[in-house]
Amino acid sequence: MDTESYVKSITPQDENFSRWYTDVVRGAELADYAPVRGCIVVRPHGYAIWENIQNDLDARFKATGVQNAYFPMLIPESIFAKEAEHIEGFAPEVPWVTHAGQEELQERLGIRPSSETIIGTMFAKWIESYRDLPMLINQWCSVMRWEKATYPFLRTSEFLWQEGHTCHRNEEEARERAEMMIEVYRSFIEDTLAIPVAVGLKSESEKFAGAVDTFTVEALMRDGRALQAGTSHYLGSGFAGVLGIQYLDEDGQLKPVHQTSWGVSHRLIGGLIMVHGDNRGLVLPPAIAPVQVVVVPIYRDDTRDAVLSACAELQSELDGVRIHIDDREEHTPGWKFNEWELRGTPLRIELGPRDLENDQVMMVRRDNGEKTPVPRKELAQTVDDMLGTVQEDMYERARQFQEDNTHRVQSIEELAALVRGERGFALGGWCGDDRCEADIKANTGATIRCLSFGEHQYGSGTCLSCGEQDVPAVIFARAY
Amino acid sequence: MDTESYVKSITPQDENFSRWYTDVVRGAELADYAPVRGCIVVRPHGYAIWENIQNDLDARFKATGVQNAYFPMLIPESIFAKEAEHIEGFAPEVPWVTHAGQEELQERLGIRPSSETIIGTMFAKWIESYRDLPMLINQWCSVMRWEKATYPFLRTSEFLWQEGHTCHRNEEEARERAEMMIEVYRSFIEDTLAIPVAVGLKSESEKFAGAVDTFTVEALMRDGRALQAGTSHYLGSGFAGVLGIQYLDEDGQLKPVHQTSWGVSHRLIGGLIMVHGDNRGLVLPPAIAPVQVVVVPIYRDDTRDAVLSACAELQSELDGVRIHIDDREEHTPGWKFNEWELRGTPLRIELGPRDLENDQVMMVRRDNGEKTPVPRKELAQTVDDMLGTVQEDMYERARQFQEDNTHRVQSIEELAALVRGERGFALGGWCGDDRCEADIKANTGATIRCLSFGEHQYGSGTCLSCGEQDVPAVIFARAY
Repeated sequence: MDTESYVKSITPQDENFSRWYTDVVRGAELADYAPVRGCIVVRPHGYAIWENIQNDLDARFKATGVQNAYFPMLIPESIFAKEAEHIEGFAPEVPWVTHAGQEELQERLGIRPSSETIIGTMFAKWIESYRDLPMLINQWCSVMRWEKATYPFLRTSEFLWQEGHTCHRNEEEARERAEMMIEVYRSFIEDTLAIPVAVGLKSESEKFAGAVDTFTVEALMRDGRALQAGTSHYLGSGFAGVLGIQYLDEDGQLKPVHQTSWGVSHRLIGGLIMVHGDNRGLVLPPAIAPVQVVVVPIYRDDTRDAVLSACAELQSELDGVRIHIDDREEHTPGWKFNEWELRGTPLRIELGPRDLENDQVMMVRRDNGEKTPVPRKELAQTVDDMLGTVQEDMYERARQFQEDNTHRVQSIEELAALVRGERGFALGGWCGDDRCEADIKANTGATIRCLSFGEHQYGSGTCLSCGEQDVPAVIFARAY
Repeated sequence: MDTESYVKSITPQDENFSRWYTDVVRGAELADYAPVRGCIVVRPHGYAIWENIQNDLDARFKATGVQNAYFPMLIPESIFAKEAEHIEGFAPEVPWVTHAGQEELQERLGIRPSSETIIGTMFAKWIESYRDLPMLINQWCSVMRWEKATYPFLRTSEFLWQEGHTCHRNEEEARERAEMMIEVYRSFIEDTLAIPVAVGLKSESEKFAGAVDTFTVEALMRDGRALQAGTSHYLGSGFAGVLGIQYLDEDGQLKPVHQTSWGVSHRLIGGLIMVHGDNRGLVLPPAIAPVQVVVVPIYRDDTRDAVLSACAELQSELDGVRIHIDDREEHTPGWKFNEWELRGTPLRIELGPRDLENDQVMMVRRDNGEKTPVPRKELAQTVDDMLGTVQEDMYERARQFQEDNTHRVQSIEELAALVRGERGFALGGWCGDDRCEADIKANTGATIRCLSFGEHQYGSGTCLSCGEQDVPAVIFARAY
């Protein structure tokens, strides 16, 4: 199917949001279904976005002293099973290797769902004294968590991610690191992806298998559902105890390290689609767009050379901008407009013979469709300014949407109505009891996205389940 | 064990090359053994080298129009088995997933040893007409080929690599691409890694499972053995036929595509160690070194502040150089010299109170130990020049070694003696018959590394096995 037909065939958001989503994923050639259950192929356009995510985040990690490394994808069952909560949480989703070639293995090997145990085993070898701490390691890789159904980028059996793992002398330093990394995620997601997030703590039932505390950043999608966009865990000394990660402290005592782990995955691409996309397709913030400016030349045979050479000039003037000239002969300008809109390119420049005469170009914003003639001599400055403006406007639009779709609720019925109406984040009271949490979930479909933490405060209210008064309010939402 | 003891405990190359190699790998903290058979952990210093390899190569790939993507690591057995030679070649080394969680899978899934079949399956979906060609895809990932023994970077069950996969309209264009990529590898390995290579064609018995032709770049290690450093395959239409990768040509005919695939892996790091390393450890070419210049301050209590502030100044002057100031308090300058030599850092700058007085620094080359005082005001220019000089000298030294260790042989006995004496590449005649190749291998331990191809010509000789005269000469060597 060519792109034109994809544009035509994109289901409107209002009609069926989830079909709209998969139409955009496939139409914009971000990903495709693979012939392996639950798996996708990340196509070049999707992967180029992932590379930009990697480059930006990786620089932020390194600025805090983190180094990259690579650990085996297979974890022996005996090592994986050492931390009881960890294996209990992940075992149902782990693919097991039982044979290699013709040989049956003596011990099964699991494909990593997360690498706390294998990395911790190495930490135990590497760490001897307090001088070796903190140890700050990150890994870019793919992991597997077996899924029955596939939802591209959001729920796939294999996914691309990064996982940071750190060791510290004490709880204070480890907690500081866990909080630092959730702040790195918050600033990256807000500044680069133009997606506002709520920051907070996970409840016991929602936290990472093996963690003491899980910090989370939660984003609100256009259909009113929440997306857990990144998590950072204070692991305490649980893994250190079972894996033997100890250090000799200055006082001559052997002590277990305190650990953190933290990760974001390619589901961030799903977030980009669902926060910014519209009925014409993807809309990418300039800071993450693989192509920031596409130039579409408009010409006939007799004006071809003049127009194309003006385009080449323009490209060399816009040095430092990620620019592409779409000079394909086999497509009309209209076809190209559609395709680049579907792919989410922030700015389009149209350049035809009349523009040449007037010494100008036509500039079109993807995010709001605004069309402006720009004098050629002002182009470099205007493009630079406009990329910044689009980035800010996109963030502000998403922030306004989140504000408009965050409501205080006083009762379980109100919350249920909100969820049914796809109306976003709900702030409501929760007494802290597991049973109340389970009751609310069963009756509304909403889960606790996060609790207050630090400067991120969500007030107080009456528990939506048991009615206890003046308890902390938390964010509820239906989630991906 | 601290680094000092590692330096002391590095086995001399002459005594036992393979122990020297593993001592360097572990002492320089490039990699460590993992608790999974055949697997290693790539530690931060090793991974930083890999990141530099990735960044450099990736830019070269993209300059030829290649785009990155990501495909599933698991391949259903039915897909993997489609190309007969391919599965025959790889099946003995493939780890098989048979269960996920508690569930037994209906079909086994192999962990990719290489992705021709899974990527080809997607090509078949994506390619419709000649307008979709060429399709040029690359993937950075890890793959698995089960190994009984572990030799860090050189022979590991899981390894990091890139695999390029392309589709073309005809044999000519596909062969052009396969040859283009072996040339990309040659220039990268020679220019950036300072490792001279021989370029050529593989014999039938040594080529990739499923390829029509395999092009290779072969490097000579310090112990006289060859390392296959990269390969590029012209695959013909074999995979296209069994996977149904067809396109509608301009003439209205449905035709199979012609394909290539090409890859290099983290064994390049093994090559760096074995070509440039010495008895003090690793020696890295400046173009690939994570730290190009290390500054070691030398001071007592009363000169500490002056020396350290001079170091900071110096760092800001050397903008654009990958520089690190080793201001750790717990180690002596001598300890630091040893450690940075072990880690292969190309230039060391020593700065003490007497240097401050004389307005100079002491600069020490890792590759040849040369020590030169450099006036402070000439430092930026001198460092810049010296990094270039070191890069060139290292290449020239390796090239001279290769020249000195390449010999023409006239008989199988001569070849056997050469292999026993660890004396490098041998140029000898081969009639082209499989049986002669097998006979030579059985009697000498040497394999055919490559045949002449294009401008890379190795002359002629008498077949070392059957004695047929005036047959092409090929490169023989014992190989990793």
